[in-house]
Amino acid sequence: MINLYDVPLFMADDAEPGDSMKGKKSGHDSEKDGIIYSRLKNGSCKLYELEKELSPLDAIRVRRVYIEQETGTTLENIGIFSLDIERVVKRNCENMIGTVQVPVGVAGPLLIDGEYAQGRYYLPLATTEGALVASVNRGCSAITRAGGAQVRILHDGMTRAPVFAADTIVHAKQVADWVATHRDDLRGVAESTTSHGKMTDVVTYIAGTSVFVRIEFDTKDAMGMNMVTIASAKVAELIAEHTGARLIALSGNMCSDKKPAAINGIMGRGRSVVAGISLSHELIGQILKTDARSLFEVNYRKNLVGSARAGSMGFNAHAANVVAAMFIACGQDAAHAIDGSTCITTVDLTDSGVYISVTLPSLPVGTVGGGTGLETQQECLKILGVAGSGNPPGTNARKLGEIIGAGVLAGELSLLGALAAQHLARAHQQLGRG
Amino acid sequence: MINLYDVPLFMADDAEPGDSMKGKKSGHDSEKDGIIYSRLKNGSCKLYELEKELSPLDAIRVRRVYIEQETGTTLENIGIFSLDIERVVKRNCENMIGTVQVPVGVAGPLLIDGEYAQGRYYLPLATTEGALVASVNRGCSAITRAGGAQVRILHDGMTRAPVFAADTIVHAKQVADWVATHRDDLRGVAESTTSHGKMTDVVTYIAGTSVFVRIEFDTKDAMGMNMVTIASAKVAELIAEHTGARLIALSGNMCSDKKPAAINGIMGRGRSVVAGISLSHELIGQILKTDARSLFEVNYRKNLVGSARAGSMGFNAHAANVVAAMFIACGQDAAHAIDGSTCITTVDLTDSGVYISVTLPSLPVGTVGGGTGLETQQECLKILGVAGSGNPPGTNARKLGEIIGAGVLAGELSLLGALAAQHLARAHQQLGRG
Amino acid sequence: MINLYDVPLFMADDAEPGDSMKGKKSGHDSEKDGIIYSRLKNGSCKLYELEKELSPLDAIRVRRVYIEQETGTTLENIGIFSLDIERVVKRNCENMIGTVQVPVGVAGPLLIDGEYAQGRYYLPLATTEGALVASVNRGCSAITRAGGAQVRILHDGMTRAPVFAADTIVHAKQVADWVATHRDDLRGVAESTTSHGKMTDVVTYIAGTSVFVRIEFDTKDAMGMNMVTIASAKVAELIAEHTGARLIALSGNMCSDKKPAAINGIMGRGRSVVAGISLSHELIGQILKTDARSLFEVNYRKNLVGSARAGSMGFNAHAANVVAAMFIACGQDAAHAIDGSTCITTVDLTDSGVYISVTLPSLPVGTVGGGTGLETQQECLKILGVAGSGNPPGTNARKLGEIIGAGVLAGELSLLGALAAQHLARAHQQLGRG
Amino acid sequence: MINLYDVPLFMADDAEPGDSMKGKKSGHDSEKDGIIYSRLKNGSCKLYELEKELSPLDAIRVRRVYIEQETGTTLENIGIFSLDIERVVKRNCENMIGTVQVPVGVAGPLLIDGEYAQGRYYLPLATTEGALVASVNRGCSAITRAGGAQVRILHDGMTRAPVFAADTIVHAKQVADWVATHRDDLRGVAESTTSHGKMTDVVTYIAGTSVFVRIEFDTKDAMGMNMVTIASAKVAELIAEHTGARLIALSGNMCSDKKPAAINGIMGRGRSVVAGISLSHELIGQILKTDARSLFEVNYRKNLVGSARAGSMGFNAHAANVVAAMFIACGQDAAHAIDGSTCITTVDLTDSGVYISVTLPSLPVGTVGGGTGLETQQECLKILGVAGSGNPPGTNARKLGEIIGAGVLAGELSLLGALAAQHLARAHQQLGRG
Repeated sequence: MINLYDVPLFMADDAEPGDSMKGKKSGHDSEKDGIIYSRLKNGSCKLYELEKELSPLDAIRVRRVYIEQETGTTLENIGIFSLDIERVVKRNCENMIGTVQVPVGVAGPLLIDGEYAQGRYYLPLATTEGALVASVNRGCSAITRAGGAQVRILHDGMTRAPVFAADTIVHAKQVADWVATHRDDLRGVAESTTSHGKMTDVVTYIAGTSVFVRIEFDTKDAMGMNMVTIASAKVAELIAEHTGARLIALSGNMCSDKKPAAINGIMGRGRSVVAGISLSHELIGQILKTDARSLFEVNYRKNLVGSARAGSMGFNAHAANVVAAMFIACGQDAAHAIDGSTCITTVDLTDSGVYISVTLPSLPVGTVGGGTGLETQQECLKILGVAGSGNPPGTNARKLGEIIGAGVLAGELSLLGALAAQHLARAHQQLGRG
Repeated sequence: MINLYDVPLFMADDAEPGDSMKGKKSGHDSEKDGIIYSRLKNGSCKLYELEKELSPLDAIRVRRVYIEQETGTTLENIGIFSLDIERVVKRNCENMIGTVQVPVGVAGPLLIDGEYAQGRYYLPLATTEGALVASVNRGCSAITRAGGAQVRILHDGMTRAPVFAADTIVHAKQVADWVATHRDDLRGVAESTTSHGKMTDVVTYIAGTSVFVRIEFDTKDAMGMNMVTIASAKVAELIAEHTGARLIALSGNMCSDKKPAAINGIMGRGRSVVAGISLSHELIGQILKTDARSLFEVNYRKNLVGSARAGSMGFNAHAANVVAAMFIACGQDAAHAIDGSTCITTVDLTDSGVYISVTLPSLPVGTVGGGTGLETQQECLKILGVAGSGNPPGTNARKLGEIIGAGVLAGELSLLGALAAQHLARAHQQLGRG
Repeated sequence: MINLYDVPLFMADDAEPGDSMKGKKSGHDSEKDGIIYSRLKNGSCKLYELEKELSPLDAIRVRRVYIEQETGTTLENIGIFSLDIERVVKRNCENMIGTVQVPVGVAGPLLIDGEYAQGRYYLPLATTEGALVASVNRGCSAITRAGGAQVRILHDGMTRAPVFAADTIVHAKQVADWVATHRDDLRGVAESTTSHGKMTDVVTYIAGTSVFVRIEFDTKDAMGMNMVTIASAKVAELIAEHTGARLIALSGNMCSDKKPAAINGIMGRGRSVVAGISLSHELIGQILKTDARSLFEVNYRKNLVGSARAGSMGFNAHAANVVAAMFIACGQDAAHAIDGSTCITTVDLTDSGVYISVTLPSLPVGTVGGGTGLETQQECLKILGVAGSGNPPGTNARKLGEIIGAGVLAGELSLLGALAAQHLARAHQQLGRG
Repeated sequence: MINLYDVPLFMADDAEPGDSMKGKKSGHDSEKDGIIYSRLKNGSCKLYELEKELSPLDAIRVRRVYIEQETGTTLENIGIFSLDIERVVKRNCENMIGTVQVPVGVAGPLLIDGEYAQGRYYLPLATTEGALVASVNRGCSAITRAGGAQVRILHDGMTRAPVFAADTIVHAKQVADWVATHRDDLRGVAESTTSHGKMTDVVTYIAGTSVFVRIEFDTKDAMGMNMVTIASAKVAELIAEHTGARLIALSGNMCSDKKPAAINGIMGRGRSVVAGISLSHELIGQILKTDARSLFEVNYRKNLVGSARAGSMGFNAHAANVVAAMFIACGQDAAHAIDGSTCITTVDLTDSGVYISVTLPSLPVGTVGGGTGLETQQECLKILGVAGSGNPPGTNARKLGEIIGAGVLAGELSLLGALAAQHLARAHQQLGRG
C-alpha cells in the first residue's frame, strides 16, 4: 500500500511526522525530483516523459505534485493506492497521478442456473449511486427464492470492421466478392497473429464506395478488442493488397465499438446473453409487494411503449446501472457499458405469475487482459470465481457474461417491482379514497 | 487511510505485527464481530443489516471477511481506502466491502475557450485502457497549439417523464390538454420540492393510452436526477388527481435516462455541449502527421457513413472513452456515460485546413451530489476548478460540461488523426511500391 | 374520357372505325406530329419540350408513341384516361405519357367518433394487393359494431428545416441565438409568402457547424410542403443575411420529409393522429374469432418485442398498407407514406376485453393542392366528404387525418385478429392432439 | 375500355343520350341491379357479397352507385377504366368501385451499366407531385452524359420471420439450437410449397421467450412475400411441432415488412442494390450549374449530418419519391416504398470531380404477381423490358431492381445538384454584394 502524499517532494526535512507510511519512501532522491520538477515548469520535460527519468512511483508523485501546483489543489487521496504500479503504468494508464477509489458493495447471494455459472454468487458492484446495490440485492433475493436465474449465452464473438475506399461501386462489389471467396486466406493471416483467438466469421457491407469488412473472433477469455484489432490489421492489409481498395481506418464503425448500434443487436457482439426467471403470484406479492398485472404493466408502458416512443435503443429500466457497476468492479472497459447495456427487458404474463427476461445481445467482457489484472479488480473477479483464464479457455469469460446477465435481471426485476409496488399502493389509496 | 485487511477479524491475537495501521483499529470489539459473523452464517442477520449492529468500518470489514469465506478468496486490496466511510455508506453504496482503485492519468494542458471554462485545464481520466490517456493528451496538445477549443452549452435541463395510463385515447388527450393548461400549477408543486431547481418545461407525449409527461428542470450544479424525480412525483400526483389518469411509473423511459434515445438527442438532456477547433494544414502535418483530406475522409467514411450503415446512434470515434473516464474520475454516475456519449463528430474541409467538432446533446453532469463528494473524486473536480457549487449556481456544472466536451474533442481529434496518419502512411507506401 | 390509343398518330386514314372517341380528336394535325416525331428522333427536340410545340393531349400522344417505338412496346392502356390533362401537365406530372389505373376498393362503413370526423365513412383504398381491402373491411366492421373509433389530432404542423453552415461552433450558437430572439421577424417574412398559413414554431438544432432551423406551419387544408418551403426560403434568406451563415440547402433533413426519422415521431409533423377502440370479450370472439389474451400476445411479441429486436421505427403490423392505399386513392403524395406510416400499435388488456390503439405522429395529408384535384382522386376525397377547403380552413385536412387514423386502426385490428385467430386455432388443435 | 358511369343503373330510360359508350352496356339486367341495391340498403346483402350475385363489372357498378347514394357524391371518373376486371377482383382488390388514374411521366433515356440492365431506359414514374419527373429526367441526362450509371445487386432474398413463444429462455435457446441443426429439414418443407423459390437462409433471433426465425428465399422474378409466407407457414409448423414452442404469428416483425427497420439494412431484404456515377468537374458545371465542392457539401450537411441529427434511417434526399413513383407505375406494392426507400446517398470528392452513389439495401421488387399483371402497370414494365419472368428466372426482377436503383441515383443527383446550384448562386450573389 502506497500513500504518496506522505512522501515529501523536495525536502525530507519538510516532512511532518505522524505516519509510519513514510517509512516506505525507501530512499527516493529528492534532489533529482527537484530538478525534474523545474524542467516540467520550464517545459523542457513533458508530463508523459517522467517515466523515462524516474521510477514509476516517483513519476506519479512528481506529476501529482506538479498538477497540485499548477491547479492550486491538494491531491491527498488520489495518491493513496495499493496497485502494482509498475504494471499499471505500462498497461493501463499513462500520465498517472494516482487512483480514484470507487466504493464496492455486494449484492447476493444470487442463485444462477447457467451453462457456465452454476450456483450462488455475490455480485461486486462499484458505484457511487446510493440505493443501487440495495436494489440489485433485493432482485437477487427474489430470484434466488424463485429457484435461480436461467441464463444462456446465445452467441460469442468479438468484431472489428475496417473500412476501405473503393474507386466505384463496381470496385466495391469486387472487393466484397474477393473477401467472400478468400475466407480461408483471411482466416489464415488473422489467426497467425494470435495463439488463442479463432476467426469465426467475416461479413462485408457496402455503402457506395465504402466497404466494411466485419471480422468476428472467438477471443476465448479475453474481451478481445486488441486481439481482433491486430488480426484485422493483417486481414485488412491482405484485402488492400489484393483488391486495390484503400484501407481508410481499421475501425469503420460497423464493428461497432462503444456506440449504441443496431448491428450489434442484430448480429451480436461480445457475449450475447439472455436471462430469465419465473415468479409465482405468491412470490410477487411477498417479496415485491405487488402483483403480476402491475409488474407487467410497468414493463409494457415504460420499457416497451415508452422506449418505442422515445426512439430509444434501450428497452429496459436501468440495465446500464448494473452493467457499469459490475464493469468497473471487475476491471472491464467502462466505456463498453455503452454497447453492453443495450438490453430488452420483457415481462410475460403466465398462468402462474410472470416470466421476466433480459436480453443483452452485445456484452463485451473478459477475464484476462485490460483492467482485469489490477489487484482490486481481480479480487472482484475472484469473488465471482472467474479471474484469469478458464478451463477450457473461454469458459471464464462466458461465465462472467452469464453472471452479469443474471445481475441485470436482478436489477430490472427490482426496479420494475418497486415501480409496480408504488403503482399498486397508489391504486389502493385511490380506491380507499373513493 | 484505512487498510481493513490489517484489522484482525475475530482474535486480536491472530494479528501479525508489522503495520502501524493496526493502531487505527481503535478498540473494535472482536467478540462482537464473531457473534455477528455467526449470525450471518446462520442467516439470522442479513448482509445489509450489518450497519445496524456495527460501525460502518466494522460492518465493511465483517462483510468483506464473510464474502472471503463464502467465496474462498482473499480480498486484500479491496479493503484499502481513504474515503470518509460514514458518508459513503449512507449516500453512495450499500453492502460495502471496500473500494476498487481505478488508475487516474491526466491529459493536458488543454486550452479551452468556453463561456464557463476559460484557460488551461488538466483532464483527470480514470481508466484501465492503456493508450487512452496518451491519446487524449496528444489531442489536447494539438488543440492547445491551435488556439484552444471553442465550447458552448446549447441547452441545459434535466428531465424525468412519468408515464400514466389513460382509459382511452380521448382521455389521454384530455390529460395532455390539462397539463398544457396547468403549467403554472405544475411548476408550483414541482418547485416546492427544491430550494435550487427551476422547472423549465413540461411536454406531453401520447402513445395510445399511455401518456408521458416530460418534465425539465434547471438543476443548477447538480446532475439533478434525484431533484427532478422528487419534483416529478409531486407533479405526477397532481396530474393523476385532477385527470384520473393512473400513474404507472415515475419514469416512463421518455426521460430518457441511461439509455440511448433519440429524444435526448433532439430535445437535449443534461448539458447539451458543442465543441470545435480549427486546425491549419501546417498543424495537421506537424502534430497529427497527416493531411486535411485524410482526416476528413476517415471521419466521413467511419463516423458518418459507417455509423449510418450500422444503424448506430453514435456518429463518433470513441467519445465514450473520454466521457466514461472523466465521469469515473469526477464522481459522475458512470451509467450516464450511455446517454452522455451519444456524440456527432464532424470534420469540415476548410480553406485553411479543417474544422473539427463534437456535439454532445445529452451530457448529464453535476459538481454537487452523487459521487462528487468522495474524497478522490472531489480532488479530480478540484483539478478542474469545479468542485461544489458555482457562483452563480449552475456555473460549475456547466463549466464541467464544457471541459468534458473539449476533452471529447481532444479524444476524437487524436484518434481520427492516428487513423488518418496510418492511412496516409499506407498511401505513401503503396505509391512507393508502384 | 380520352383514349389516346384510338387517335392515329401520323395518318388519319390509318384510323380504324368503331369508336366515337375519335370524334374527340377534333382536328389534330398529323403532319405536325410527324415533324415533331422526326425531331425527337434526331434529338433536335427533347421529350420535355413537346408541350411547347403541341397541345397537352397531342404532346402526350406523341411522347407515348415515341416511347413505344423506342422500347418496342404497345402502350394501349396507359393512353386511356379521363383526367383534365391541361391541369395535370402543368401541376402534377411532366413528360406525361398517360396514366396507370390503380384499382380502388371501399372498406366500410366505418363509424368514427373524432373531433372532425363524425359518423360513418367508406374508405377508398387504391391497391393491387389482394386481401387488403377485405381485411380493412373486416376491421371496420368490428370497430363499427364496437361503437366507433375514437380519434384525436394531437398536433398539427408541417415543417421545413433549412441547413446553414456556420464558420465555427461559436458562430453556430450565435445563429441559434439570433433566431431565438427574432422569432417575430421570421414569422413576419414567413407569413408574407402565404395568405393561408401561419408559422407556429421555429426551433434550432446544431451539429457542429451545421445549423438546422426547423420552421413549423399551420398549413390549413393543404399538406403544405410547398407553402412551408416557400416561406422557409424567405426565412432562410433573412437568417443568412443577418447572421452571415451560409444557406446550404433549403431542406437539411431535419424536416424530415419522406424519410423515417425520430424527430417526426417526437416533435410531430403534419397531422399527429391517435385512434383507439375498446373491444369486449364478446365481440372479440364473435367477429375476430379469437380472445383478448391472444390478441394481446400477438401485438406484444410482434409489434413491440419484435420491432424492438429488429431495430425498427415501425411498431405496428401493416399501417403502411392502409396509409399507402388511402394516400394513392385520395391524391396524397404517395412518398409521404414513408413518414406517414411510422405508427405505434398497442393492445391493452382491460377488464372488459382489450383497448386497441394506433398512434401516427407524422401523417402529412391535405385536401387541396397536389394530387387532390385530379378527377378520380377528388372523387375519393368526396366519398369521405373532405374535398377542397374546410370551413373553417384546416378542418377538412384534419378530418382526413382522423379518417386515415381510424382506417389504420381498422387494418391493425383486422390483421392482429387474423394472426391471433390462427394462433388460437393452432392452440386448440394442439390441445386436441394431446 | 369501360366507362361504368355511362351504364344506367336501374332504368335504361333514365339514360341521357350523347355518348356511344352506352352501347357497351350490352344487356345488363337493370331489374336485378335494383333488387340487389335494395338488399344492400336493408343490409341483407353486404358490399363484399356483390360478386357472388353479379358479374364483376355489374358488381363494381352497383357498389359504386351505392357509395354514391350513401355519400351523396357523383363518382364519374372512378368508373372509367380499361383493366381486365375479372382478374383484378380476384387477385388485386376487393369491394372494387373503379380505379384512380395516376399520371405517368417518363424520365430518360437513362444509360445503365448493370449486370442485368444494360443500355438506355425510359423510367415510367406515376406521380402527382409536379416537378418530380422533370427533376429525375435531368438526373438521367447527367448520368447518361457521364457514361451511364453503374449498378450492382449485392444480395437477393425475401424474408419472413414467424415469432414463437417459448416457455423460458432455456426453451428459447433449445428452439434456436433445433433450428440450427435442422436446416435441411426446414429447407425441405419450405421448398415443397413452391416450384420456383429456394430457401437460402434461416437465422434465429431471441428476445427473452420470443423466438424469431427469419427465413430467406430466392424468389426469382416474384417480389415473393406470398411465396415466402406460405413456405414459412410450413416451416413454422414443423418447428412448433418438434420444439413445443407456440407459433404466435407468421410475421414477427423481424422480417421486416413495410416498416423501416435496421435489420433490413444490415441483412438485406428483397434486392439489395447499389448504384453510382462519376461526374467530372466539367459536367457538374455544365449540367448541374454548380461545382464539386458545393455538391459534396449539400450531401454532407443534409444527407449525412442532418439525418444523423434527426435520428433518421434515411440518409438521402428523396429516394422515396423515385421508389414510390416507379413502384406505382410498375405494379409493385406501394407500401413497400417504406422499406424500399431506406437509402444512403454519398458524394465522394475525387480528383476529377465527384463520385455519387446510392445504396438501397432492401428493395422488394418483382416482375410477376401482385399488380404487375394489370394492363397499365404491365405496359410500364414492358417499357423497361422486364414484364413477366426472366430467362433465367430472377433476371427480370433483378434488372428491375437495378433500374430503380439507377433511377434513385438520378433523382438524388438532380435534387442535390439543384440545391447546390442555389447554394452556389447565393454564394456568388453574396460575394457580388460585398
